[in-house]
Formats: sequence, C-alpha cells, structure tokens
Amino acid sequence: MKFARLPEPPYYTAIFSAQRTDGDHGYAAVADRMVELAAQQPGFLGVEHARDEDGFGITVSYWQTLEHIAGWKAHAEHLEAQALGHRRWYVHFELRIARVERAYGKAP
Amino acid sequence: MKFARLPEPPYYTAIFSAQRTDGDHGYAAVADRMVELAAQQPGFLGVEHARDEDGFGITVSYWQTLEHIAGWKAHAEHLEAQALGHRRWYVHFELRIARVERAYGKAP
Repeated sequence: MKFARLPEPPYYTAIFSAQRTDGDHGYAAVADRMVELAAQQPGFLGVEHARDEDGFGITVSYWQTLEHIAGWKAHAEHLEAQALGHRRWYVHFELRIARVERAYGKAP
Repeated sequence: MKFARLPEPPYYTAIFSAQRTDGDHGYAAVADRMVELAAQQPGFLGVEHARDEDGFGITVSYWQTLEHIAGWKAHAEHLEAQALGHRRWYVHFELRIARVERAYGKAP
C-alpha cells in the first residue's frame, strides 16, 4: 500500500524529510519496525514514503490529533530509533507538523 | 538544493503524492519547468521532492498562505500541466493541503 487511505480532513501530518548517510548501519530493519509500530499507535491514520536513489527521502505520516503525534514521538522504542537517526542515519533532517485542511485525488 | 529553507511557521503546504505511469511522455521537461515557474509565484517558500525507483513520488511545496496555493493551482501554464498529469503521467495521485504549525530539524 503506497497511498494512505485517509478520512475527511481535518487531521494532522508529520512531514519528515531526510538525507541518509551512506550505508545501511541497521537502518532498514529499524525503519520497517517503526512503520509496523507506528501503525499500532492510537490515532495513526496512514503513512506514505518515497526515497530517491541518492538517499533523499520524504515520509509523511497522518494522525488524528497533535496529541497522537506527540505520543508517537515519545514512544520508548521510537525514541531509541530517533537517537540512532540523529547519530547514524541522517546527515540532515527536517520535520514539519501540519494540520490538513483539504484533500482530493484521483484513484484508479 | 534538496531541503527547502523555510521561515518560522505558520505557513502552508501542498503535499502531492503520485504514482507515475511507465515512460516519460514529456513529463521530465514539464516537471522541471513547473518547479521553475512555481518558484516565481507570489507566496512560494520552497519545495522538496523524492521519488522511488518504481515511480511513486512525494512533492511537498510550501507557501505563505492558502490564497497563494490557490493562485498557483489556477496558473494557466500549471493548469495545462495538471491536465497532462491527469491524462498521461499519473495512475493515481493525492493532494493534501495543510497548515504547518511547528517545525524543527538538524542541518549539517
């Protein structure tokens, strides 16, 4: 599933852009686990992700409220992953938290 | 420049996720032109983009206000590109419009 199936707005999003370091350094396994774990959290609505061949990626996760995003950020296992991200996996990252107000699309 | 350099929130974002069709069909040239043209529009703050090898991509553009996003959507040359996107380039796309409320990051 590449596209998140979301309810009608409003809801919230965490837009995470990051440039990876070279090499895996344990990233792939933890990234998979984080997607699995995020999906089990209260308020999780969906996630989409794309990464260029040169390691620049954007992950957009969607949540019912800001409090749900804060809860996920503070999850113990996710905190460990964030620390590894800062130390090992990301040269540069930016996180923007936003309230989705409108949405539309064209599905096949 | 992969990362957008943005002012302090609040500002607005258009999160565009799309699955490309196979083949270029004139896409690359128009996509480059649209980035160039968007950057000339009033209220434009920045854009980030990543695409997987299998054609799933996320483009996040940032704008001062919702009215600036509406202005860009209604730009004549952009309307032509949107029509081509619907007909030729995208199997599926989703657009979410959101108000960025908080932002932080780690730059090198």
